[in-house]
Amino acid sequence: MTRLLASTPCADGFRMPGEFEPHARTWMLWPQRPDNWRLGGKPAQRAWVGVATAIARFEPVTVGANHDQYENARMMLPDDIRVVEISSNDAWIRDCGPTFVVDDKGQVRAVHWDFNAWGGLYDGLYFPWEKDQMVPLKVAEIESVDRYKAPLVMEGGSFHVDGEGTVMTTEECLLSPGRNPELSREQIEQHLRDYLSVEKVLWLERGIDPDETNGHVDDVACFVRPGVVLAALTEDKDDWRYELLQDNLARLRDATDARGRRLEVHTVPMPAIMEITEEEAWGIDTAEGSIPRRPGDKTAASYLNFLICNGGIVMPSFDDPNDAVAKATLERLFPERDVVTVAGREIVLGGGNVHCITQQQPRG
Amino acid sequence: MTRLLASTPCADGFRMPGEFEPHARTWMLWPQRPDNWRLGGKPAQRAWVGVATAIARFEPVTVGANHDQYENARMMLPDDIRVVEISSNDAWIRDCGPTFVVDDKGQVRAVHWDFNAWGGLYDGLYFPWEKDQMVPLKVAEIESVDRYKAPLVMEGGSFHVDGEGTVMTTEECLLSPGRNPELSREQIEQHLRDYLSVEKVLWLERGIDPDETNGHVDDVACFVRPGVVLAALTEDKDDWRYELLQDNLARLRDATDARGRRLEVHTVPMPAIMEITEEEAWGIDTAEGSIPRRPGDKTAASYLNFLICNGGIVMPSFDDPNDAVAKATLERLFPERDVVTVAGREIVLGGGNVHCITQQQPRG
Repeated sequence: MTRLLASTPCADGFRMPGEFEPHARTWMLWPQRPDNWRLGGKPAQRAWVGVATAIARFEPVTVGANHDQYENARMMLPDDIRVVEISSNDAWIRDCGPTFVVDDKGQVRAVHWDFNAWGGLYDGLYFPWEKDQMVPLKVAEIESVDRYKAPLVMEGGSFHVDGEGTVMTTEECLLSPGRNPELSREQIEQHLRDYLSVEKVLWLERGIDPDETNGHVDDVACFVRPGVVLAALTEDKDDWRYELLQDNLARLRDATDARGRRLEVHTVPMPAIMEITEEEAWGIDTAEGSIPRRPGDKTAASYLNFLICNGGIVMPSFDDPNDAVAKATLERLFPERDVVTVAGREIVLGGGNVHCITQQQPRG
Repeated sequence: MTRLLASTPCADGFRMPGEFEPHARTWMLWPQRPDNWRLGGKPAQRAWVGVATAIARFEPVTVGANHDQYENARMMLPDDIRVVEISSNDAWIRDCGPTFVVDDKGQVRAVHWDFNAWGGLYDGLYFPWEKDQMVPLKVAEIESVDRYKAPLVMEGGSFHVDGEGTVMTTEECLLSPGRNPELSREQIEQHLRDYLSVEKVLWLERGIDPDETNGHVDDVACFVRPGVVLAALTEDKDDWRYELLQDNLARLRDATDARGRRLEVHTVPMPAIMEITEEEAWGIDTAEGSIPRRPGDKTAASYLNFLICNGGIVMPSFDDPNDAVAKATLERLFPERDVVTVAGREIVLGGGNVHCITQQQPRG
């Protein structure tokens, strides 16, 4: 029960709210892909339970699982988490799932982007991705919300909105040759305006994972609230990420948002670069067409990859000295929210973190 | 989000309402099994669309589909029908799905029976049935209703309730060796009392499909409303079903219900016996362990296999002279409901009809 609408959210008076606005629930997908998750996905599944349980302290959580993992997901997850059957190729609902938009009357609708596994046949991470592509439809059906089909390849992790007309994204991702090579920057901006109801696009240049998501913004910067942003930094000038993070910071400090405000910019340090160990790499299947996970590969660990919930923040931690700094930073910036940390290492071994594996559904 | 409750509906003040009480929605499952449905299930799927569309005139419909048929189900079904991913081994949600119970406060809960494909390894119709067995759990999760697990093998098509303390069933089915051979008649009656909140069990002897459901009552009799029943009859004394239907009629005419009322008994004729044709049989796969569908096999066609909806009745028709008699009978017995007929032949080729492929969820 979801009508496919021919218009756009902007034309119909719908906008994407900021993540910090009230949620109805958060959606997740259950991990199992053996060529991305070690040891049959069991350590990842345990990590997912930790994330879902943490979010469920603050708001309802629904987890979608493939039919052959449904029973196991249902048994591993606490009773108060809803488990539904939703097939996926992997478990990154931030990227393959719907983006929800709302209007002033409390109606909720879904935006269904095209998804091509972060680059399709050009530099995507696996093939095929046909189940991922149907996740937004299936979520919209379960919730009985109507749906817009946006005519471009896009992932939810590649942008953040302030809910007041501003979207933040990266050139590296949105202008990548594996996404929408036939669209100009101006055409992409127009689609963002139409489907998110924004007026201004804040372009950062790069993210920290060129080989995976092609630089999703959700590892490097986010909105704390309208007019206030948080950016990741490293102090280590030998770190290859030093310059790009400095460049992002400079762009944010120079920027004004859709309302004409100069942004208040805060920073949070990065954890030390984490490499996949031999122990962590050996139990992963090899599959043609899937990105390999090898010992020594550098992960995209970042504290920015947290989820804002109703009254809470769920933040990944990495047994790193900067864990405490990051937590204190979030507690200072979100004084009205309870900051909960979850073990993030097992998740980042597969390419992302808390924000990548969640998708908030705003309250209507 | 469904708690597994350790008590029983009866102990908690929950009862199964009559089918004629108000519904929140009706559930269906999408057919595809190639060893039961001819030509890749396409003719059956078209028939299912007819049934779902007819029901949707009266109340919301949700259809569960296996992941590999989800897209096709979504495209074939009208937009106003909700399609969700629910795996099943075949599409008989009346039998493998939950039975819903309600309390006086408007709460709804699910009863999850054991399901063994109508007789398990003794005389069941296929193996395995592990996906069917999880259907009640998945429905309860989607609706976020709590769940009772009943400790016996039982199918929704094997009983009807009047919502006022009476259940009608058949000895052939409930006492069959493929269901609960370790339970006595008295123990089974106690489970019916506990899980449906009934006081009185009306036992008919036999149904019309000994080789399939072992005589489900929903092909031979039902409640029109409390105190009023409808029974199937044939006038043809050479019809092998003549005697058993006469016996059922006599039992109903002798019976009193839980409230002590003598039943008002109405009758409806059967369609002529329908055999599977060569044309209808050739496109069905052969599979070890599944009941074969051969030319000349007699189907269990019956007008009794209808669904009562909010303000309507969806009744199967068979291009039989008695179609009009049956429709007129239902119109007379349900004067406040609109009686809609759907083509029932394609469905009965697989072993059941409208009532077998639907499961009502009462309004809370």
